[in-house]
Amino acid sequence: MIEPGELIQLQKTRGKNYIRCVPETDSIKMADGRITAEQITNSHYGDFVYTHRGGEYRLVMATLSDLVKGVRRETQIIYPKDIGFILMKLRVFPGARVIDAGAGSGSLAAAFAWFVGQEGAVYCYERRADFCDLCRRNLEQFNLENRVEIREQDVEEGFEQNSVDAVFVDIRTPWTCLDAVQAGLKPGGLVGFLLPTTNQVSSLLEALRETSLDEPEVAEILLRHYKGNPERLRPDDRMVGHTGYLLFSRYHPEVVA
Amino acid sequence: MIEPGELIQLQKTRGKNYIRCVPETDSIKMADGRITAEQITNSHYGDFVYTHRGGEYRLVMATLSDLVKGVRRETQIIYPKDIGFILMKLRVFPGARVIDAGAGSGSLAAAFAWFVGQEGAVYCYERRADFCDLCRRNLEQFNLENRVEIREQDVEEGFEQNSVDAVFVDIRTPWTCLDAVQAGLKPGGLVGFLLPTTNQVSSLLEALRETSLDEPEVAEILLRHYKGNPERLRPDDRMVGHTGYLLFSRYHPEVVA
Amino acid sequence: MIEPGELIQLQKTRGKNYIRCVPETDSIKMADGRITAEQITNSHYGDFVYTHRGGEYRLVMATLSDLVKGVRRETQIIYPKDIGFILMKLRVFPGARVIDAGAGSGSLAAAFAWFVGQEGAVYCYERRADFCDLCRRNLEQFNLENRVEIREQDVEEGFEQNSVDAVFVDIRTPWTCLDAVQAGLKPGGLVGFLLPTTNQVSSLLEALRETSLDEPEVAEILLRHYKGNPERLRPDDRMVGHTGYLLFSRYHPEVVA
Amino acid sequence: MIEPGELIQLQKTRGKNYIRCVPETDSIKMADGRITAEQITNSHYGDFVYTHRGGEYRLVMATLSDLVKGVRRETQIIYPKDIGFILMKLRVFPGARVIDAGAGSGSLAAAFAWFVGQEGAVYCYERRADFCDLCRRNLEQFNLENRVEIREQDVEEGFEQNSVDAVFVDIRTPWTCLDAVQAGLKPGGLVGFLLPTTNQVSSLLEALRETSLDEPEVAEILLRHYKGNPERLRPDDRMVGHTGYLLFSRYHPEVVA
Repeated sequence: MIEPGELIQLQKTRGKNYIRCVPETDSIKMADGRITAEQITNSHYGDFVYTHRGGEYRLVMATLSDLVKGVRRETQIIYPKDIGFILMKLRVFPGARVIDAGAGSGSLAAAFAWFVGQEGAVYCYERRADFCDLCRRNLEQFNLENRVEIREQDVEEGFEQNSVDAVFVDIRTPWTCLDAVQAGLKPGGLVGFLLPTTNQVSSLLEALRETSLDEPEVAEILLRHYKGNPERLRPDDRMVGHTGYLLFSRYHPEVVA
Repeated sequence: MIEPGELIQLQKTRGKNYIRCVPETDSIKMADGRITAEQITNSHYGDFVYTHRGGEYRLVMATLSDLVKGVRRETQIIYPKDIGFILMKLRVFPGARVIDAGAGSGSLAAAFAWFVGQEGAVYCYERRADFCDLCRRNLEQFNLENRVEIREQDVEEGFEQNSVDAVFVDIRTPWTCLDAVQAGLKPGGLVGFLLPTTNQVSSLLEALRETSLDEPEVAEILLRHYKGNPERLRPDDRMVGHTGYLLFSRYHPEVVA
Repeated sequence: MIEPGELIQLQKTRGKNYIRCVPETDSIKMADGRITAEQITNSHYGDFVYTHRGGEYRLVMATLSDLVKGVRRETQIIYPKDIGFILMKLRVFPGARVIDAGAGSGSLAAAFAWFVGQEGAVYCYERRADFCDLCRRNLEQFNLENRVEIREQDVEEGFEQNSVDAVFVDIRTPWTCLDAVQAGLKPGGLVGFLLPTTNQVSSLLEALRETSLDEPEVAEILLRHYKGNPERLRPDDRMVGHTGYLLFSRYHPEVVA
Repeated sequence: MIEPGELIQLQKTRGKNYIRCVPETDSIKMADGRITAEQITNSHYGDFVYTHRGGEYRLVMATLSDLVKGVRRETQIIYPKDIGFILMKLRVFPGARVIDAGAGSGSLAAAFAWFVGQEGAVYCYERRADFCDLCRRNLEQFNLENRVEIREQDVEEGFEQNSVDAVFVDIRTPWTCLDAVQAGLKPGGLVGFLLPTTNQVSSLLEALRETSLDEPEVAEILLRHYKGNPERLRPDDRMVGHTGYLLFSRYHPEVVA
């Protein structure tokens, strides 16, 4: 049985997927009708449920991958293939304090919030008010909003926090916020960047030379799905060819004796 | 300053990297000499330290990516590019209970232990006694052993736990343990597999048809690094061409009314 | 100026491309009207021409890559990225005699015909009459039909030729025609296969063990295009993820003393 | 039986491969001894032959792919995966006249010479005398030298030919030779470039804007080999991650009325 408070994914047959938190008593409102809380809590994962107007949805558990792909978006989101690697390289852990600079729709913020847990904190910076709203609504949808502070502020103006464990930067001109990144990070801390173009990678690598952000590592990740027929195993005909380049670095400040 | 208890990476110039936990008072023993705890706690991240025989090492913070690549290994390890994606797809979270079936050297177990936190638990199954020892030593090295139970047992014999959140299987014949996986998982729970060959993918896909493991998704991840010269940006000449195929599925048991 | 007899590509703005041979005097008939021969021969490469009903087309020279992508098709075609590699591995040369087994729409046959030149010959085998017609019409369109013989025949029944330089096989069950391939090839000759699925690759590799087809080499080719903006250089968002696996082998018959 | 004049590949067991032309009567001199012409002409493809000092070699037919990988090299060569695609995009055909600008060791020149046949011509430009010699020796080794003119000249100084069918440019600063390329090409003709770095791609794309070189198309090709065990089919552990970016364009000169 499915419990109130659980995060579920409603899969529309041959259509989109929707992340929802199971309500105590209210209905869930979909575009094609309502599903009552009772319908869901009387169902099992894998079952189909129907809106009062006949819309069919399958109930499955929401993974973190489902979450980050399920954010309502007005920006390019960061994809699971990239987020998973970012988590490993930025040393995110339960209890960590992490800055998400250029939060956009909040897909990465959701993943950070998921893994820093109740004791951790995610500080989102986003200069556009509409994206701040969107990011907040997405995090609320996922019940992760209490681990996240969202601030409508340009990252070039610096961060309110210092000695954070890690910073991720997803803005068009990341070389403008390197002072802010260094002021925010604790010594030894990690920083990552998402860069859609090679020109940005070059510009950032050059700017890093003037900083204490050390050992830059540039990579890209390609994810290839396969069709699931065991007698005719083969990759999908088409795949995502590019999301962005990832750049990681370590903060090693010079210490004045 | 670096504190006792922190996980650090000692980078040998043009050589291997070593993960160590900073001791309170003891020395760290390297192959080419000892480094005292005091040397390290008097240093800063990014500094060089020297063994009593002159071996040079750079001190950097150990990321989870460093950890999983730094396990002492007698088996093929699972790579950060794959582990990051596994974490997202298996819904690992702080507090989760996860089974690692075929633990090998423990690279994935370390990542699971890292993210399930103090309240979570990782149950490792490994039939070879020598790999159990190796896995344990690696987890102790990383201070993660108290979150992990290691059991010397063939996964086909079933798991001691049930209603776990997720299971990952990395054994040669994963189709032999599907009953065990279903008995161990909670409804809606997630399972993942690492499969080096296409033949194994086909065999597993076929075996899954007879189970309540649903919606199989097959993928592979390619990681491409770039040389860090901003004036001559280009991918590395050589890259890893294959680690393994990943297969994910959801446990949707039929419920008898 | 463009000469009668030249192979051109008519590029529809934001639309498809069409390969045509410039006629002496007739018009070229497009879906949206006619273009006279005079219009074309009075134009230069890169110019726009217009049908009598106002359809706009750009005139460019037809490359072999344009040709093989421009075949009218009712089957999966073989792509330029794969054909180029096939030409190199099968030792196609001006004057060569080559068998194309399972010719389909004729994209590979066109490339073979292009490179074997006037003195060479391409022998197409195709069991479906409708594909034979289609293949013939495509080769006529490209003025390459006099270098090609098309035979409506199942490849399992064997080939009429022997001692050919190379054979390429693109049929669903290529392991059924290995005797035919060996009977057709000259000693030392080369054979290639296109295989959409991993199951076919395994089956063929296994069947080859019983033959004198030696040194099997399996590969796949990925082509990634980039957006052409120099200030924002980046790969296309989406790419072709799979066309097929290529397998090449050498015919080394045992010689009875 | 193998005939004098044929191009063969001598495969050293677990070692390098060597391309040689079968002599009428002389011996072939290898590093570990001599093989007589008679030994070879009495052998069959697939046989082993032995030098007078016992060095073992397998005799196989030399494909074009073998040739281009078999050039003696002092420069980065162009790989078969890239050359095949270049041939398709540059409209190389038997009888074509093609310029190879920056010929280096001659791997691409060999492929051009192979496909333009007896009636075609390849014009190599190379500013370094030592590379000119190397390129010439490689082409002689392959019996292709009579189709090629090699000129020790900087490509910025322009080409002696005009109205050629295609030009390929492989030099560090290709934007310096765009006038030469346009002067050399016939209208509608094709040009290709190999560029190791993204910075070069950006610089060239920008320079092309000032020319009549039209419709630039940027791509890269990845080749992944598989291990040939049918029961354990899987990609090779490591692969080539990068050779270079390819850029193709069409020459569409403005015509002054």
